[in-house]
Amino acid sequence: MYKIDLNADVGESFGEFKVGEDDRLIPIITSANIACGLHAGDYRIMDQTVALCKKYDVKIGAHIGFNDIFGFGRRQLPVGALELKQLVSYQLGALYGVCKLHGVEINHVKLHGALYNTVANDLELSSVLIRTIKQFNDAIKLYGLSGSENERASKLLDHPFYAEVFSDRAYQSNGQLVSRSKSNAMITNTELIANRMINLVKTGKITAEDGETITLKADTICIHGDQPDAADKALKLKNALITAGVVIKAE
Amino acid sequence: MYKIDLNADVGESFGEFKVGEDDRLIPIITSANIACGLHAGDYRIMDQTVALCKKYDVKIGAHIGFNDIFGFGRRQLPVGALELKQLVSYQLGALYGVCKLHGVEINHVKLHGALYNTVANDLELSSVLIRTIKQFNDAIKLYGLSGSENERASKLLDHPFYAEVFSDRAYQSNGQLVSRSKSNAMITNTELIANRMINLVKTGKITAEDGETITLKADTICIHGDQPDAADKALKLKNALITAGVVIKAE
Amino acid sequence: MYKIDLNADVGESFGEFKVGEDDRLIPIITSANIACGLHAGDYRIMDQTVALCKKYDVKIGAHIGFNDIFGFGRRQLPVGALELKQLVSYQLGALYGVCKLHGVEINHVKLHGALYNTVANDLELSSVLIRTIKQFNDAIKLYGLSGSENERASKLLDHPFYAEVFSDRAYQSNGQLVSRSKSNAMITNTELIANRMINLVKTGKITAEDGETITLKADTICIHGDQPDAADKALKLKNALITAGVVIKAE
Amino acid sequence: MYKIDLNADVGESFGEFKVGEDDRLIPIITSANIACGLHAGDYRIMDQTVALCKKYDVKIGAHIGFNDIFGFGRRQLPVGALELKQLVSYQLGALYGVCKLHGVEINHVKLHGALYNTVANDLELSSVLIRTIKQFNDAIKLYGLSGSENERASKLLDHPFYAEVFSDRAYQSNGQLVSRSKSNAMITNTELIANRMINLVKTGKITAEDGETITLKADTICIHGDQPDAADKALKLKNALITAGVVIKAE
Repeated sequence: MYKIDLNADVGESFGEFKVGEDDRLIPIITSANIACGLHAGDYRIMDQTVALCKKYDVKIGAHIGFNDIFGFGRRQLPVGALELKQLVSYQLGALYGVCKLHGVEINHVKLHGALYNTVANDLELSSVLIRTIKQFNDAIKLYGLSGSENERASKLLDHPFYAEVFSDRAYQSNGQLVSRSKSNAMITNTELIANRMINLVKTGKITAEDGETITLKADTICIHGDQPDAADKALKLKNALITAGVVIKAE
Repeated sequence: MYKIDLNADVGESFGEFKVGEDDRLIPIITSANIACGLHAGDYRIMDQTVALCKKYDVKIGAHIGFNDIFGFGRRQLPVGALELKQLVSYQLGALYGVCKLHGVEINHVKLHGALYNTVANDLELSSVLIRTIKQFNDAIKLYGLSGSENERASKLLDHPFYAEVFSDRAYQSNGQLVSRSKSNAMITNTELIANRMINLVKTGKITAEDGETITLKADTICIHGDQPDAADKALKLKNALITAGVVIKAE
Repeated sequence: MYKIDLNADVGESFGEFKVGEDDRLIPIITSANIACGLHAGDYRIMDQTVALCKKYDVKIGAHIGFNDIFGFGRRQLPVGALELKQLVSYQLGALYGVCKLHGVEINHVKLHGALYNTVANDLELSSVLIRTIKQFNDAIKLYGLSGSENERASKLLDHPFYAEVFSDRAYQSNGQLVSRSKSNAMITNTELIANRMINLVKTGKITAEDGETITLKADTICIHGDQPDAADKALKLKNALITAGVVIKAE
Repeated sequence: MYKIDLNADVGESFGEFKVGEDDRLIPIITSANIACGLHAGDYRIMDQTVALCKKYDVKIGAHIGFNDIFGFGRRQLPVGALELKQLVSYQLGALYGVCKLHGVEINHVKLHGALYNTVANDLELSSVLIRTIKQFNDAIKLYGLSGSENERASKLLDHPFYAEVFSDRAYQSNGQLVSRSKSNAMITNTELIANRMINLVKTGKITAEDGETITLKADTICIHGDQPDAADKALKLKNALITAGVVIKAE
């Protein structure tokens, strides 16, 4: 049996500023990364988003970013071990508080934006991240970039890890993503996207930008939720996967 | 044996903006109300403050306010049952996350500023507050205004409640505080303050502004931490209580 | 010759949070109310929005609100004469600074959200508002609710005033807007909207909710920009007005 | 006649968060750098601070920083020509608006924190800064680090420039400040500080860390305002300068 998880960033609204179509996206995905009020989201949106996830039986994760609403967590800010621990414990706790209201549990942590990229490339910070999660609750999985230092640290510390792949991004032959600054970074053809993902789930392999076939660990596919037709695209990919015999679930 | 708890609002700095002298105040008190990042405090200060409380064996409480850094939680904002539940669950959770890092527990909740006053006067909101705390962890005490709707709701819902009194405030004969808009609202003589508190702890009675002796439940005395000589005043009051044979502790 | 101005609230994005379709709306309107960074907007968006207004020769106004990004300026906050003066002078100045970069001038001030409503109903605050504008530059018009205390204060202080009407709102026979809490508050039929506005511009009269014909001063029509089809609706209304022989311009 | 200006950063409070002792410092200095609401300060504090400066006849300057209240403008954020223009025009305008209320003028611009350092070392950004100031009002001086690219760009663009020196910092023999990371970076002896400054004003020379005597342009001395005894230290330096026959004024 082939299976894959579909995750998306949700709960990214802030006050009266609306982001994404969570009402449409959450019923499609199987794992939700919920912003925790520092780079996006707030105490109200989190409550509404957790309720939606509970309703649709979607796994709940803490989407943890820099303390930077204005920059939406996309700006690089200084981060060391202490800052990372503090960012993670506050945000993980805040989501825990909201989950308690609804009698649900946190399934995973995923980092956001500039923090995601920084920690993915740093074994020491990846280890700090995992130790902080463990101290909170060692059953909480880490969702992180496939092949990154996140994955390596998870193995070293024996922590549950979900390798994340991007359905609309090209890969280099070394398993790294093609930089967004390159013209071929994004894959836009929805049929090609579906076929690449079906193949990846079934064979563990994907074609890199140079035509080479590479191996890529894939436990969860990231669905981008901030584009106008995000829910439609997600549904197409999901249906293509199901039609190809892939089971969509987090566990 | 006579005993009383001394509580103070701490961890109210924000980024580079420093508030209070927590280093000096925390060793004096027995219960700390830690700001949770919405009206004051942030994910870094909370971590430092919890560490200080652990070091000095001070009980840790969530100081929960409106989402209003600019107004320091002192401005009245609209609040109903849903808003209150959301404010409490987010902030209680955030502090829980920080406490997990240090292996310590949350002892109590105290509301802050405009939220404190609003809920103290409202039985329905007081009940919502207590039910939200219970849902999080029913061992977490509520620290609230003595004689308020907080106290009444705690009894109705059988929830542990600490009645808070203010050492530097005058009381009306009905047990209510004299409004700060009145000239006799504040008591500034430190000896008088100490004697009133010693008497209150030992007899359960205090002299109201009109000279009448009234009964006032007192489990914890609020120490104001935001004045220049706050720590000195707190230490004087503490020493006067100890000299009078009163044990200072939270439990 | 009949003429009317069309104004809309623009530049309401904040950081990465996008609001409205300014690219489509600004070419349609003749007066733009630009958020100034306190309730919405920021120093970047303001620059982009002023550039767009200059390109399409749209009059530039300062949209002045409470200091409340989280509440988008819609929450009622305390405001007296001093607070109002401070809010207005800061925001008017900030927009002036951005306009200097582009060599354009500020045409008008319009208040936003809760501040709009509060001041519209208060002659004293309306006078403070006008005196503050005068002190900045007495050629800057005030756009305000038709028939409000804004209008009365403008007459008393001999200040240029544009009476604003709402194309999609029902009016009471006393000239006040029907409260949004009532079911008949909003008018949704686009043809009816256009006919009401054409009639109002040509005759100075509009039909109130009770069927009575009332007189209403109308210098500018507010176009709501925050709905998905705002630009389309605005264009329809504009074209209907033009077809009916009405000239659309601010001056 | 020897003369020097004394400048300090003021108006750095935010909401209820108090910074510095402006009431005591402003009567001592001759130029005030007023925070404009992005890294510190707000529309209320600015109003109060401009009023104080007017009362004591202190020159008013815009202290322009990154949009980063949480980091107090001390964190390095990305900045290019466009961002700089937008930051400067918004903040300069905001202060202009407040000054209009009081009938006073802006005398100068000084950059703050991380933005100060970045632009001081970059000729291109220094030129953008000056051109943006000129576009606003070409009589507004730039106060910037002595010997920096600010100074070079001011000469190239023929813009009025005040070279700033730091009384409590050691200098390298190339005219640069000794990095704060070095143990000898700060000079703490108040008598030594005074003598160095008197000598600098009278001779245009100062002793570098290696004992070499170097030439340093000095139009204004920066007084640090955020330490507990800042006003006392400033007064001592001022009195020592006056006693030595130096006139303290901005013009």
